[in-house]
Amino acid sequence: MTEFMTEPKQGDTGSAVGAHPLDGHEAGAILERVRASVDPELRSALESLPGSMRRIALYHFGWEHADGTPAAGNAGKAIRPALVLTAATALGGQPARTAAVRAAAAVELVHNFTLLHDDVMDRDTTRRHRPTAWTVFGDADAILAGDALQALALRLLAEDPHPASARAAARLADCVVELCAGQHADTAMELRRPGEVTLDETLAMAEAKTGALLGCACALGALYAGASEEDVEALDAFGREAGLAFQLIDDVIGIWGDPRSTGKPAGADLAARKKSLPVVAALTSGTPAADELAELYGVPYEEADLERTVLAVERAGGRDWAQVQAADRMARAMQELARAVSDPESAGGLLALAEFVTRRSS
Amino acid sequence: MTEFMTEPKQGDTGSAVGAHPLDGHEAGAILERVRASVDPELRSALESLPGSMRRIALYHFGWEHADGTPAAGNAGKAIRPALVLTAATALGGQPARTAAVRAAAAVELVHNFTLLHDDVMDRDTTRRHRPTAWTVFGDADAILAGDALQALALRLLAEDPHPASARAAARLADCVVELCAGQHADTAMELRRPGEVTLDETLAMAEAKTGALLGCACALGALYAGASEEDVEALDAFGREAGLAFQLIDDVIGIWGDPRSTGKPAGADLAARKKSLPVVAALTSGTPAADELAELYGVPYEEADLERTVLAVERAGGRDWAQVQAADRMARAMQELARAVSDPESAGGLLALAEFVTRRSS
Repeated sequence: MTEFMTEPKQGDTGSAVGAHPLDGHEAGAILERVRASVDPELRSALESLPGSMRRIALYHFGWEHADGTPAAGNAGKAIRPALVLTAATALGGQPARTAAVRAAAAVELVHNFTLLHDDVMDRDTTRRHRPTAWTVFGDADAILAGDALQALALRLLAEDPHPASARAAARLADCVVELCAGQHADTAMELRRPGEVTLDETLAMAEAKTGALLGCACALGALYAGASEEDVEALDAFGREAGLAFQLIDDVIGIWGDPRSTGKPAGADLAARKKSLPVVAALTSGTPAADELAELYGVPYEEADLERTVLAVERAGGRDWAQVQAADRMARAMQELARAVSDPESAGGLLALAEFVTRRSS
Repeated sequence: MTEFMTEPKQGDTGSAVGAHPLDGHEAGAILERVRASVDPELRSALESLPGSMRRIALYHFGWEHADGTPAAGNAGKAIRPALVLTAATALGGQPARTAAVRAAAAVELVHNFTLLHDDVMDRDTTRRHRPTAWTVFGDADAILAGDALQALALRLLAEDPHPASARAAARLADCVVELCAGQHADTAMELRRPGEVTLDETLAMAEAKTGALLGCACALGALYAGASEEDVEALDAFGREAGLAFQLIDDVIGIWGDPRSTGKPAGADLAARKKSLPVVAALTSGTPAADELAELYGVPYEEADLERTVLAVERAGGRDWAQVQAADRMARAMQELARAVSDPESAGGLLALAEFVTRRSS
């Protein structure tokens, strides 16, 4: 899953899924408070690792340079721990929030374990503006550090005396299995020919790869608030739908995003021939532009063809489809949230986070 | 860690660590009973995986061929689950044994997760007489299936209502971290020059890579028997020492073993320039033979030099050291066992297993 690399800007005009009264300021404040609660728990977990594993983990989290000296740190935006704590607060107030800090750290450890492994498999060389761990320490150590972070996550929950911790651990472990299946589907789909991939399986892959952990984060918060099984499932669904909305917007930005704000060259996803959601929607649209796109995707990328490729996705309806889908997913997310948290004030934090992850200037 | 590939033979003459009244027959019967209890739990855990991950896992366990058709199965000797169940029985009788089946399956899942990942890192192409998973499904899928097995292991414990399950999960997660550090040390040591590796760090690596999980298996059995903290630690130490004894014997066999019973070419470990325990003991012996060995290890392997290399390890005292160390470790294992289980009859099963893993014809 792509990291949330840019802070929301005050006065941002575009939310791709429609206007909402909450701006990025509230989400920014939530994220800052979450980092302040969760970072000490995360750091102390990482400090408990044996030296070799600790070094790789601290580098990956941005807390150390490759040579082991301290770094200013850019450990990502902590969206997932924020969802845990904000869901706990929404359903159980401050005591639930305090109780859920360890679970929030566990979710962040799982997220980072999957990033370490995905980067090895995808041969990605940059993460959070720094060289990926495998490029610095080698494949074996990046795999091992990922393994250790998964173990650390589940140990945090196993050692947590809270009555919900065992159910949280089982749910988080299930989520890891789903993330693995999602990453498998992603790598397998990239190897297939453009015409062989259906939109349903692309959506299922995105849900497993991106939605599952956001849903699990919300569900864990609900568990720590002592919520009913029904509310736990509603919050899981909220997180999944918001996650899919995020992925759709992220894929739109991967094609039409401004390189100055995305930090990636224009059309990077198309150049890599990525079967992102708008592309698969376009390819399966049955339009003449779909045939043109399939032809372009069937041959290696040339910069001269970029504009034509972008236009083909657009003409085949890929962009419109993705934006309508994203809005639809966000609407579903709101419905699920309302089922579990009827008081708008209590729901405000989760709404702000959902807005934040899907609100990026294109 | 090397698999236990050969069944103990009736009438085997050589136990490298001295004679013991128990023969392999008892261990064989224990292992058979353990498979009968643990396999259904393991299979049902693997069946719960999504299709893509299930397929790789069932292949790795030897229960399916690469094309998904059922296979006769050769999922290893189940030493670790046997240690869990036998330790539980020794300290808590049949009820503890019954309660610990899920924990036994969890330990076996962790073992197999590490095998999947180690094979990717070490580029090993054969496991249990079959092509390794990564050679069949690719690196990414072998890594993902390993990740999923770790999650599955910790989920089994998280879902277990037994009062010891959370402590068991925390211990197993800690053990995973130690296994990762051990594998890191192993791969890092293989890249260093022969003279740069000390015997202490080689022993520490072997304890982390091989002893830790055998110790954890015994400790989990004790936890499920409701044993005292002291007895849990004694059983952990028993498993660790027996594991080190096993590794020492295995390393001896890797140099002096009969290819007809090891299934590997003579001197395979020396050909691979492996810094096994007898080799490092020889290299650090300060003898003239140590210098000769260092010189031989400093250049690529040639078959013509094999005999000289074997002799150099022997003359430098590597073989004798390893055999004395193995006997010493087994003696320590027995002491730890006696601390926790004073009744010789109750200790019999664990003794038989310890004998079994260190009793292989050289």
